[in-house]
Amino acid sequence: MSAHAISPSIGTQLHGRYRAVRAATERLTEHLSEADCVVQSMTDASPVKWHLAHTTWFFETFILEKAVPDYQPVNPAFRFLFNSYYNGIGDKHPRPERGLITRPDLAQVRSYRAQIDERIGQAWLHGHLSSPQLLSLLEIGLNHEQQHQELILTDFKHLLSKNPLQPTYRAHWPLVPVAQRREQWLHYDGGLVQIGHRGDDFAFDNESPAHRVFLEPFELAAYPATNGEYLAFIDDGGYQRPELWLSLGWDAVHARAWRAPLYWSQQDGQWRVFTLHGPMPLDPSAPVCHLSYFEADAFARWSNAVLPTEAQWEHAAQRALASAAHGNFADNNLLHPVAAQHERPLNAPAQLFGDVWEWTRSSYDAYPGFTPAPGLVGEYNGKFMAGQYVLRGGSCATPAGHVRASYRNFFPPDARWQFSGVRLTR
Amino acid sequence: MSAHAISPSIGTQLHGRYRAVRAATERLTEHLSEADCVVQSMTDASPVKWHLAHTTWFFETFILEKAVPDYQPVNPAFRFLFNSYYNGIGDKHPRPERGLITRPDLAQVRSYRAQIDERIGQAWLHGHLSSPQLLSLLEIGLNHEQQHQELILTDFKHLLSKNPLQPTYRAHWPLVPVAQRREQWLHYDGGLVQIGHRGDDFAFDNESPAHRVFLEPFELAAYPATNGEYLAFIDDGGYQRPELWLSLGWDAVHARAWRAPLYWSQQDGQWRVFTLHGPMPLDPSAPVCHLSYFEADAFARWSNAVLPTEAQWEHAAQRALASAAHGNFADNNLLHPVAAQHERPLNAPAQLFGDVWEWTRSSYDAYPGFTPAPGLVGEYNGKFMAGQYVLRGGSCATPAGHVRASYRNFFPPDARWQFSGVRLTR
Amino acid sequence: MSAHAISPSIGTQLHGRYRAVRAATERLTEHLSEADCVVQSMTDASPVKWHLAHTTWFFETFILEKAVPDYQPVNPAFRFLFNSYYNGIGDKHPRPERGLITRPDLAQVRSYRAQIDERIGQAWLHGHLSSPQLLSLLEIGLNHEQQHQELILTDFKHLLSKNPLQPTYRAHWPLVPVAQRREQWLHYDGGLVQIGHRGDDFAFDNESPAHRVFLEPFELAAYPATNGEYLAFIDDGGYQRPELWLSLGWDAVHARAWRAPLYWSQQDGQWRVFTLHGPMPLDPSAPVCHLSYFEADAFARWSNAVLPTEAQWEHAAQRALASAAHGNFADNNLLHPVAAQHERPLNAPAQLFGDVWEWTRSSYDAYPGFTPAPGLVGEYNGKFMAGQYVLRGGSCATPAGHVRASYRNFFPPDARWQFSGVRLTR
Amino acid sequence: MSAHAISPSIGTQLHGRYRAVRAATERLTEHLSEADCVVQSMTDASPVKWHLAHTTWFFETFILEKAVPDYQPVNPAFRFLFNSYYNGIGDKHPRPERGLITRPDLAQVRSYRAQIDERIGQAWLHGHLSSPQLLSLLEIGLNHEQQHQELILTDFKHLLSKNPLQPTYRAHWPLVPVAQRREQWLHYDGGLVQIGHRGDDFAFDNESPAHRVFLEPFELAAYPATNGEYLAFIDDGGYQRPELWLSLGWDAVHARAWRAPLYWSQQDGQWRVFTLHGPMPLDPSAPVCHLSYFEADAFARWSNAVLPTEAQWEHAAQRALASAAHGNFADNNLLHPVAAQHERPLNAPAQLFGDVWEWTRSSYDAYPGFTPAPGLVGEYNGKFMAGQYVLRGGSCATPAGHVRASYRNFFPPDARWQFSGVRLTR
Repeated sequence: MSAHAISPSIGTQLHGRYRAVRAATERLTEHLSEADCVVQSMTDASPVKWHLAHTTWFFETFILEKAVPDYQPVNPAFRFLFNSYYNGIGDKHPRPERGLITRPDLAQVRSYRAQIDERIGQAWLHGHLSSPQLLSLLEIGLNHEQQHQELILTDFKHLLSKNPLQPTYRAHWPLVPVAQRREQWLHYDGGLVQIGHRGDDFAFDNESPAHRVFLEPFELAAYPATNGEYLAFIDDGGYQRPELWLSLGWDAVHARAWRAPLYWSQQDGQWRVFTLHGPMPLDPSAPVCHLSYFEADAFARWSNAVLPTEAQWEHAAQRALASAAHGNFADNNLLHPVAAQHERPLNAPAQLFGDVWEWTRSSYDAYPGFTPAPGLVGEYNGKFMAGQYVLRGGSCATPAGHVRASYRNFFPPDARWQFSGVRLTR
Repeated sequence: MSAHAISPSIGTQLHGRYRAVRAATERLTEHLSEADCVVQSMTDASPVKWHLAHTTWFFETFILEKAVPDYQPVNPAFRFLFNSYYNGIGDKHPRPERGLITRPDLAQVRSYRAQIDERIGQAWLHGHLSSPQLLSLLEIGLNHEQQHQELILTDFKHLLSKNPLQPTYRAHWPLVPVAQRREQWLHYDGGLVQIGHRGDDFAFDNESPAHRVFLEPFELAAYPATNGEYLAFIDDGGYQRPELWLSLGWDAVHARAWRAPLYWSQQDGQWRVFTLHGPMPLDPSAPVCHLSYFEADAFARWSNAVLPTEAQWEHAAQRALASAAHGNFADNNLLHPVAAQHERPLNAPAQLFGDVWEWTRSSYDAYPGFTPAPGLVGEYNGKFMAGQYVLRGGSCATPAGHVRASYRNFFPPDARWQFSGVRLTR
Repeated sequence: MSAHAISPSIGTQLHGRYRAVRAATERLTEHLSEADCVVQSMTDASPVKWHLAHTTWFFETFILEKAVPDYQPVNPAFRFLFNSYYNGIGDKHPRPERGLITRPDLAQVRSYRAQIDERIGQAWLHGHLSSPQLLSLLEIGLNHEQQHQELILTDFKHLLSKNPLQPTYRAHWPLVPVAQRREQWLHYDGGLVQIGHRGDDFAFDNESPAHRVFLEPFELAAYPATNGEYLAFIDDGGYQRPELWLSLGWDAVHARAWRAPLYWSQQDGQWRVFTLHGPMPLDPSAPVCHLSYFEADAFARWSNAVLPTEAQWEHAAQRALASAAHGNFADNNLLHPVAAQHERPLNAPAQLFGDVWEWTRSSYDAYPGFTPAPGLVGEYNGKFMAGQYVLRGGSCATPAGHVRASYRNFFPPDARWQFSGVRLTR
Repeated sequence: MSAHAISPSIGTQLHGRYRAVRAATERLTEHLSEADCVVQSMTDASPVKWHLAHTTWFFETFILEKAVPDYQPVNPAFRFLFNSYYNGIGDKHPRPERGLITRPDLAQVRSYRAQIDERIGQAWLHGHLSSPQLLSLLEIGLNHEQQHQELILTDFKHLLSKNPLQPTYRAHWPLVPVAQRREQWLHYDGGLVQIGHRGDDFAFDNESPAHRVFLEPFELAAYPATNGEYLAFIDDGGYQRPELWLSLGWDAVHARAWRAPLYWSQQDGQWRVFTLHGPMPLDPSAPVCHLSYFEADAFARWSNAVLPTEAQWEHAAQRALASAAHGNFADNNLLHPVAAQHERPLNAPAQLFGDVWEWTRSSYDAYPGFTPAPGLVGEYNGKFMAGQYVLRGGSCATPAGHVRASYRNFFPPDARWQFSGVRLTR
């Protein structure tokens, strides 16, 4: 969270945004069953019910407990049960056991959400939320909830994919294939550029401070790489040639028997992908996704290219005057990356935002002069700055309005269950 | 399954029993939520929903598919999804992933149960179930379902125990403490005795053939060991003294940090046990349970005694003219072992049946001349004859009428989630 | 060790035997290098140097420390370093780290052996070893050292097998192939028989007490199964057919990718076996060895037979008036099982002793009335009575004179690095 | 390897250097026993014998095979046996099994070294080594062997530390304690600086290309952190306070029960460290070493400081006109970090080179425009660019003359067995 002043009118806007974000979470999950919401399919993922409760716990623990005099918790056990990783808050329920909590049931968790929403409304009315610090925390809470909206989709997709019946999250599939695009590269002069968050808008602490970085001249691909291009890598023996891989990547290929991106399968010689709409034929023009960093890196090496640094990516986004407002985000309801049609050469990169998160070659690290947000919420970002890589731009599962040019997402290099793709540079 | 003739009237009785056993399963689970039924708490355990479906799958696969001409399965995917371990049936869904199946949902599984019950009824009406072989398989299916009734209780107890809120299966707790019993031993002359199943009643294949075994004279404890006696073992440093333990047991004590039986915990110096009715104070007079074989064996060594062989146990049960009909079984609805009141010395062992399964020192192995049941159902018992120990007598979670003197239950020596206790011999 | 009186003249004989057994250990290892002796190839195995030191430690710890007034240890650190598993002696060096001890070096360990031999000789001279209890312990020590002589060979064979250069322990290979034998079965009436150790000779505590067992009539194979017979099992898809395997065995086949016995490999369509003389072509007439219990059991099932119980095996050995004195033992220096030539039908089983240890279907358990040897040496056998199966008869790596009809060896069912084979019964 | 021209006179110098480097390896190991040289103490480490053979294999495989017409290998099996990780060369012996190779014995490996030295000499005489490409590879080979000289020391130290007898590599201990130094910080203006290798000297490929980096102003500690300073971190609960640790670091603290740097132990309240000279009392003035990245990072956070980036470190080294020629390197024979005496404030950082490798906060990644060395040797560095952090400056176990200001060493963040320490920045 960067320190920025919040005016009273922003406070009112914030309450409106609070209701909107909370309602969006409900819409994402209202058609899921009790069973759909309780199960945890792997340690990396969490149950939908846990996401519903944990985002609520965030508002109760970091805001209501501080803001409201003599605050009585909705249920004291929830403080322990729905803490994710904040050691400063006290003990927490072990992450791999989140799926064992059949009680409280889904109705109780929905009721917990409603009660906290009610209490936030009351706190607003009684002027308990007027301090800049609390408004700031509220803004973090909303951005936090948006992050979990995306995780609800990706975690639930993983759960469905483990069911041999291959069920769907939503049955319709409105996607249309588009014409294959020609490769195109855009040139950048580089030089001493500035990256990181500036201005008064909300941003997470890890986007600050803005600072100068020197870039050599470079070229960036106009589009994210497509399924068709990635298929050529596979067909050229990409998964069998050690010289294309980082050493740890080659280990992962063997240990996990990777032969294609996550959710791809071959049936009678045809590639199919598992989507939130169920299994679909592979669209060669759509951006490839569900790649690990290792696969993105090997594909880049095979392409005689490299992954962009996060500074290159952000510089290109600034130059494009790109706004996160446009792009294939979760609000589109496609929930899968698609290729937009383009008839002539581009003079700015397409699809920088939305569709797929783009792996950069930058390890997730602190910016020079970084200081974590003050207070308990300071555990939010900084302590994860080891062993992960930065991704940029948001995906088809990201809420619209959530990301920006300076936004830094991060995952370990072997993670594949996010909508993660690749854009080349050279 | 031992080969025994089944008369027409027995056929009718069987159908009545079919309805009764199936209904008992419903009664056990009807108050559980969708979430309660879908989660798997460890690889050894299965979700309640899976138990409901798998027992039904057994009747469909082993009986209806064979009995009914041109049989169309309720859902072809279930053949794969609800197969437990029968390699002869084809591929099966991996055991550790049973908890990931949120769909079909609970209503669909209950409907699967109803449809199969209806089809079994129709098959009966049309005379498709009259062959002795099919009636035999049906009888196996009912006994199989009773075994899963017990597992529903023990697996669900394990799931609840992993919830920090310590919820209950049923809230009431009608148990009353009883007076401490004095130790008493009963003498047996031994000699050449016969064990194993005889007669026309149903028995599993592993109880046959009946055969002779030579027993030296021995003494058997009149009661299963109590919590109070086991507490004395703990207080005497039982879990800290390697000389009391088998080598593998001592490894387990360290690797899993065992300090007491499963579900025991200490709070402010008082021992409490987690039960299907929630957490309760420890009753020193009740039979100790949730012991591993290793703990039972160490307790016996500490007591200057040993565990009985299964032949000793069965001989004592024959001599007592003991019937499984009486005892604290699941139908009592206590769902926890209790001590019956006795005022004077016994001349036959008490509580041989019900309350707790009693570990014997006999490895689970084939009787001399053993042949598995014919056909695919032959995978039922024989292939598990390695690495497990025999338990005898049934527990408070076993359906009444399910066990008998020759009945052989079996679990690995480190299993603790069954209602498993110990009776000493010397 | 069974309690038996030891006369003074037996004392003198014992000292002679002491020198002979200790010298035999030296002969086995004198041509090995410092490197050969220090490395540990897996947790189950130990370095040769450790075997040399540990057997010496046994005499120092259990005999000299007790027998000699004011005894000063050769090196106080050895008490910890060379303790195998005796918790009663105190802390011990972790088993998986036995191969990390490059110092003391081999010369120091040989010197340790010489010093203890010298001290034992002095203790004899000064009459410190005259008590029956100490003589008994000495006898255990000698039998213990013989067991380690066998382990030196099997552990070292395993180490050599992990070297891609396939080196040899001894280069010569005097073995001659023999004619294939016809299958032959010998009949036994069974009845009430007695097994276990009787008489005044030395035996381990686990062979006692002698006791009666009832046996149904049975037939025993005249020969251990051969490589040729086992090859027919492999060629018939033995390792691909789940119905032939115990459930745990089938898991092991998959987890460890077993396709043949340990040390078999296929080159240009020909089977070869790695022996202590290096790699050799497979001899179809020689007894099959390096089988796990699971493989022996599956082979028996495929042969429509079973493994003998240990009581059946011992009864057959008694009836044959078989003595362990004859057989292909380590003193033959062949160090590999071979088939003896027989021209006509046998009236007693051949090769009961020597060549290969024969898996029985008996779990390793205490005999009725078993009590461990008194004192610290009581940890010798009893605490391993879980999770293992009994093998009988000794092997080509067992010192002559070490085994007898009542001798019980034991290993876990997945162990394959001993010379373990199979003889069928039905 | 950076591309640089090599003149004939440099060729002659190179041969002299070849003999010197090879002889240095012999001197390091000549007093070790066959057992000392064969054992592998963990997967990360290799046996001394393997280091001796592998460095020789490098010259044979990458130089002699290419340079000498009709080259016949000394032993064809060595190509497989002593390949470390070059997939381009073909199959390789598994790393965790390097310690199982008791044959060839140490004498054979020493003879292999001598034969390759002889063949290199002959190749020189016959003019087979005159091409710039081969001379370049030879130079890589020498730098490669120096890297293994350091690993011989650190791997062997780890092996000795696992021996409860705590033996020594060399017994003497000439180190003298020095006065405690006062904390001092040196200021740098930063700006657009150039890092990476320039000039004609040898450097590894990962040091190129030289490129510009923008640095904000910063301060660097005049000394590496000392044992005394680290002790204050420990005494202040450093290992018990999650807020000081990266999330993965906190996991490692728990999983491995870290309470102090590697090789520290507490006896009667006094800290001792295990060194190559055996166990020694902790010297509070000497640089702390055997830290993981996680420990270095937590210590920095506790100190209200951070680790330097590798660009900051290299810039400071350039500014100090620092040469690697001076410092406590392996040729000093101290083989442990020591603190040099300083009487007044410094105007340049002390001990940048030698004593301890200094963790930087820079992930090990490719410089912009990086291209791996051509040919098979291209696997040398690039493929390890994931999951590791850069260390700078060399240690007391590094050969003098091996490192330089642009030299990049790299290890995973949990590695502790190198002489790795920490210098703070802020």
